[in-house]
Amino acid sequence: MNFCSDNVTGAAPEILAAIGEANAGSLPAYGDDALTLRVLGRIAEVFERDADVFLVATGTAANALSLSVMTPPYGAVFCHPDAHIECDECGAPEFFTGGAKLVHLPSNDGKVHADALRTALDAPDHGVHHVQSAAVSLTQASEAGTVYSPDEIAGITDLAHARGLKVHMDGARFANALVSLGCSPAEATWKAGIDILCFGASKNGALAAEAVVIFDKALAETFAYRRKRAGHLFSKMRFLAAQFDAYLNDGLWLHLAEHANAMAERLADGLAAVPGATFRHPVQANEIFVELPEPVIRGLEAGGFQFYRWPGDGAKLLRLVTAFNTNEADVDAFVDTALRHAVKK
Amino acid sequence: MNFCSDNVTGAAPEILAAIGEANAGSLPAYGDDALTLRVLGRIAEVFERDADVFLVATGTAANALSLSVMTPPYGAVFCHPDAHIECDECGAPEFFTGGAKLVHLPSNDGKVHADALRTALDAPDHGVHHVQSAAVSLTQASEAGTVYSPDEIAGITDLAHARGLKVHMDGARFANALVSLGCSPAEATWKAGIDILCFGASKNGALAAEAVVIFDKALAETFAYRRKRAGHLFSKMRFLAAQFDAYLNDGLWLHLAEHANAMAERLADGLAAVPGATFRHPVQANEIFVELPEPVIRGLEAGGFQFYRWPGDGAKLLRLVTAFNTNEADVDAFVDTALRHAVKK
Amino acid sequence: MNFCSDNVTGAAPEILAAIGEANAGSLPAYGDDALTLRVLGRIAEVFERDADVFLVATGTAANALSLSVMTPPYGAVFCHPDAHIECDECGAPEFFTGGAKLVHLPSNDGKVHADALRTALDAPDHGVHHVQSAAVSLTQASEAGTVYSPDEIAGITDLAHARGLKVHMDGARFANALVSLGCSPAEATWKAGIDILCFGASKNGALAAEAVVIFDKALAETFAYRRKRAGHLFSKMRFLAAQFDAYLNDGLWLHLAEHANAMAERLADGLAAVPGATFRHPVQANEIFVELPEPVIRGLEAGGFQFYRWPGDGAKLLRLVTAFNTNEADVDAFVDTALRHAVKK
Amino acid sequence: MNFCSDNVTGAAPEILAAIGEANAGSLPAYGDDALTLRVLGRIAEVFERDADVFLVATGTAANALSLSVMTPPYGAVFCHPDAHIECDECGAPEFFTGGAKLVHLPSNDGKVHADALRTALDAPDHGVHHVQSAAVSLTQASEAGTVYSPDEIAGITDLAHARGLKVHMDGARFANALVSLGCSPAEATWKAGIDILCFGASKNGALAAEAVVIFDKALAETFAYRRKRAGHLFSKMRFLAAQFDAYLNDGLWLHLAEHANAMAERLADGLAAVPGATFRHPVQANEIFVELPEPVIRGLEAGGFQFYRWPGDGAKLLRLVTAFNTNEADVDAFVDTALRHAVKK
Repeated sequence: MNFCSDNVTGAAPEILAAIGEANAGSLPAYGDDALTLRVLGRIAEVFERDADVFLVATGTAANALSLSVMTPPYGAVFCHPDAHIECDECGAPEFFTGGAKLVHLPSNDGKVHADALRTALDAPDHGVHHVQSAAVSLTQASEAGTVYSPDEIAGITDLAHARGLKVHMDGARFANALVSLGCSPAEATWKAGIDILCFGASKNGALAAEAVVIFDKALAETFAYRRKRAGHLFSKMRFLAAQFDAYLNDGLWLHLAEHANAMAERLADGLAAVPGATFRHPVQANEIFVELPEPVIRGLEAGGFQFYRWPGDGAKLLRLVTAFNTNEADVDAFVDTALRHAVKK
Repeated sequence: MNFCSDNVTGAAPEILAAIGEANAGSLPAYGDDALTLRVLGRIAEVFERDADVFLVATGTAANALSLSVMTPPYGAVFCHPDAHIECDECGAPEFFTGGAKLVHLPSNDGKVHADALRTALDAPDHGVHHVQSAAVSLTQASEAGTVYSPDEIAGITDLAHARGLKVHMDGARFANALVSLGCSPAEATWKAGIDILCFGASKNGALAAEAVVIFDKALAETFAYRRKRAGHLFSKMRFLAAQFDAYLNDGLWLHLAEHANAMAERLADGLAAVPGATFRHPVQANEIFVELPEPVIRGLEAGGFQFYRWPGDGAKLLRLVTAFNTNEADVDAFVDTALRHAVKK
Repeated sequence: MNFCSDNVTGAAPEILAAIGEANAGSLPAYGDDALTLRVLGRIAEVFERDADVFLVATGTAANALSLSVMTPPYGAVFCHPDAHIECDECGAPEFFTGGAKLVHLPSNDGKVHADALRTALDAPDHGVHHVQSAAVSLTQASEAGTVYSPDEIAGITDLAHARGLKVHMDGARFANALVSLGCSPAEATWKAGIDILCFGASKNGALAAEAVVIFDKALAETFAYRRKRAGHLFSKMRFLAAQFDAYLNDGLWLHLAEHANAMAERLADGLAAVPGATFRHPVQANEIFVELPEPVIRGLEAGGFQFYRWPGDGAKLLRLVTAFNTNEADVDAFVDTALRHAVKK
Repeated sequence: MNFCSDNVTGAAPEILAAIGEANAGSLPAYGDDALTLRVLGRIAEVFERDADVFLVATGTAANALSLSVMTPPYGAVFCHPDAHIECDECGAPEFFTGGAKLVHLPSNDGKVHADALRTALDAPDHGVHHVQSAAVSLTQASEAGTVYSPDEIAGITDLAHARGLKVHMDGARFANALVSLGCSPAEATWKAGIDILCFGASKNGALAAEAVVIFDKALAETFAYRRKRAGHLFSKMRFLAAQFDAYLNDGLWLHLAEHANAMAERLADGLAAVPGATFRHPVQANEIFVELPEPVIRGLEAGGFQFYRWPGDGAKLLRLVTAFNTNEADVDAFVDTALRHAVKK
């Protein structure tokens, strides 16, 4: 009954099993094994593109390494002020880029908007005195649980590319966004102009596995060196590759995300009936931001449910996250408890 | 029949099983779970010391993060020229420290020697013009397969501490060194003056797990932030912790290392009978550096054995590494093949 | 008739002369000469404090080096969004600190306010996931031409110190602020809680000279190494020292700033009579931000006056900066021209 | 009577005068003034090449910025172990490059040799595990006072370029080397394959001025941003430009170097007559490395002469440096004193 995040879970059984199967035999280290090479190819196939793919174990590594090949040390990366790269990585982008600056493009829906980017890019040029615009980072699904449509993405990437910027997508919840959109992985990424996708698996059933998918191959040239010197090249790479192998088998990754999203929808639908419930954002993936009356929140806490009271707003705003293995019964129990405490009032 | 390295292996079954067992249930992320906290305590207990312990997944991360808390950006780290931190981490120490310099202390046996360190420290002071001596890094077992005795370590750490330097031990093969020494983990580390040990498991049966054991607790203050911003804080930390849990159970880590060392000894003993075989270094852990006649080497290669011809010396020098799961029959076959081709000559 | 900035000027004759006088003879390099040592002492005396003083040639170097001893690479520095360190140093603070983040505390008057700082510091703690609050940077006089009172400063530094933060003052226009305040250098700095002052001379009559005055001596420990490795240690330090020597002689620095401020006041008083003139900020030092009717601006431009149309606001906002050598006749001509074009309308 | 270094001097009168002349009037800041633009062109003309030129104030800044555009953070820069960038810049190259590694190519004459470079480049490739060869740095004149011939330079640059490396020349004493060679500036640099020259003036009569002359213009693209964020862009750039203006007028820079070299030759010739004097290196520019009997050294010290006893070798090795303003009488007095004390023995 833990709705804190989609990283409080263990791993999907299929992925765990794949690790066991990958254990046999001596294999070349550092990713030169056949399993890894095959899996890199599979990932590129999923995106219908001859992309360069690199495996790492954490989302922070995937994001920061990606940004490091998109921006010089004196560059600026535009992002939403709530972006994971800005708020939750303890300065990893600055570390990996050698000091680039993250510049905020605020909005109410957790997404970067093309018009805000245009305003920022149209600001007077200060020449050498100011950091140079280099990249835009989008989070899909966003930290607000909202999802960019391919058209929204294209609106941003067209502008960015026209001005010489590259576009990064933090896809820690890419699977959740994709099943919400119902389009193809290619349509949601490079066909809409994305240059690098951080294709997350850790939050959707893997133990620890992220794939950096580089569509703009020129950006891949230095990646391998940067990964190594950051300590993110695994000697027994087979164990990262095996996770992705299972993740892609028979659409497992999509099924897991579909389940998580369905649970979020079920939870949101149920909570909509609670008097005083106000949703901060539309529920488009597997995150819900909902304001509930304090007695309801207390009732849920007393009932043993775990979740975050989101900072600000008198802590009446909750973030509820569902995962690949969220139990339907737990969702229903959550709703029932909420309704019960609302009624009491 | 792969003697290339101890990272071409999979994982020990006990460690793999522990990962499966750790999968159940929702747990706090980022290491706040009970399993991780318990395992950190167990590691400290193994070293009989109230140490601060941090888990990461790669040796490069462990080493570079450790050095980053020991040296300022304008510092110097003394090490053997063949040290992994110098040769095999693509500049990770420089990256994590913000530009510190690795200064070579050469020797013939792969080890740093106290007298070489003294000479370096006694060199005239160039004040602000030169990087400042900050740390010494020892590899145990060394890249030459040799092992520092506690007395040798103490000779170095006494000198280092007297001059205000900290001492790091790269223990990627710490277990192999320890069973070779036959002393306690404490005697081989902090009792001999080590400030931080990178306690490796990946090369000795884990999938990907290293523990940074900080004996000088003042060095631990900033470690958690540095680990996070380097992308090395795992959300599902349970899976790193589980590996160490199994590693320590019933002395598994020592048994695995004992086996690897025994196989190395068996292999070395066998090769000693090959005419023309010359050992470059005493075989003290699980690495053998042996010069063999070219026909013998070719015979081994033709026989399907995998190993590295070590750079330099006309490639007649081989490095042979045994592992926790090296097969006795493979060792014997290796020796037999070598002998057979030597006889022919 | 150039009102673009106080760095379009040459140097004060007294300072130029001092450079000539310092030319004679062979002297120890890198600041070990008697002149430099004497000047460092004089600067400390001006501040009535046993401070550690370091000379550099540019304000960016002074600021970035100062911040580098106040914040770890994973730290946050609070500043006004218009601060020079944020807008005009091409990421120097990020470079020198190894990637620290500048966090905005906006306001309408160009100054950081204690309540904004408190709100930021009271935000929920994200632990290791977020950069750690480390320092506050104030610009005195601010980029808006406004001046912090000692009480305002103390309000900020009390709060900062209570939370473990250090406080930096960018004093590129410190002299202008000080003569505006009418208090002592000590009262405007360490007595109000400032830990490091970048004591500017370049904008107030020097060729290129800034003194980093470190009141919190613990922050000085690593400064000399950082200055050297950033290429900011001059071999012929005498030429930086000589500038400060003359700067402090007979209160030259204060007289120069008094003149600049008086010219700003005269200019502001004159412009106040122009119909449609609106002052954005009170004129407290040597910078004026004034909105003027477009015909007036065009008339001034046609009249050969040089100044910046400030970005935003349809470019009707002008920044006018007076300097140590601004000509009274030029000021009067500026006002006359403005009035003439206003009358025409 | 100070032979410690060529940075213990003041400035040449012509250069000092030029600073005074540049003082008049208001000029655009940050190098957009006509004087600076003209001087940049003059420097390019001296080298008969459409080079990109950037002015900074210190040699460390010039060198480190140059290396930062030649090597990625995971790169290796080959240099002599005694190179200024390795020994005397407190890690500036590592700082500016984001952590590149300096790799030693030792020799007895202070110079990098092509065959040593070839051996290093022919070493087995470790792929992503090792830093990547990126640049070679030559010091002209070298730290041993020796001078590379154009042919020697070409031998190195041909090899470097064939392997994809760039070549940097630390020309802190470029003028001394050039007059020693008797060739043109172009022949000593880009015609021999140099990609970037740090063209020093500070050690040859300037107050503080160095020009980075970028012959390979692709390397210039990011230089301006890197200079700014390192705090090395001067607002009153006219004062750096004026120094170079005078430096180039009527061949002043060559005359100053000719004098320094002549004084070194005179000094060396005189000392050759001292019994027991042994020259470590041929005297080819303005530095002498000579071993003298201890009584002679003591006599010189007692006579008030200042110089360095060079580290190592029982401190009997002296480094003697002459400068643009070294007095012939002082040279003769030095020799006389040496002879007198030698005779006594």
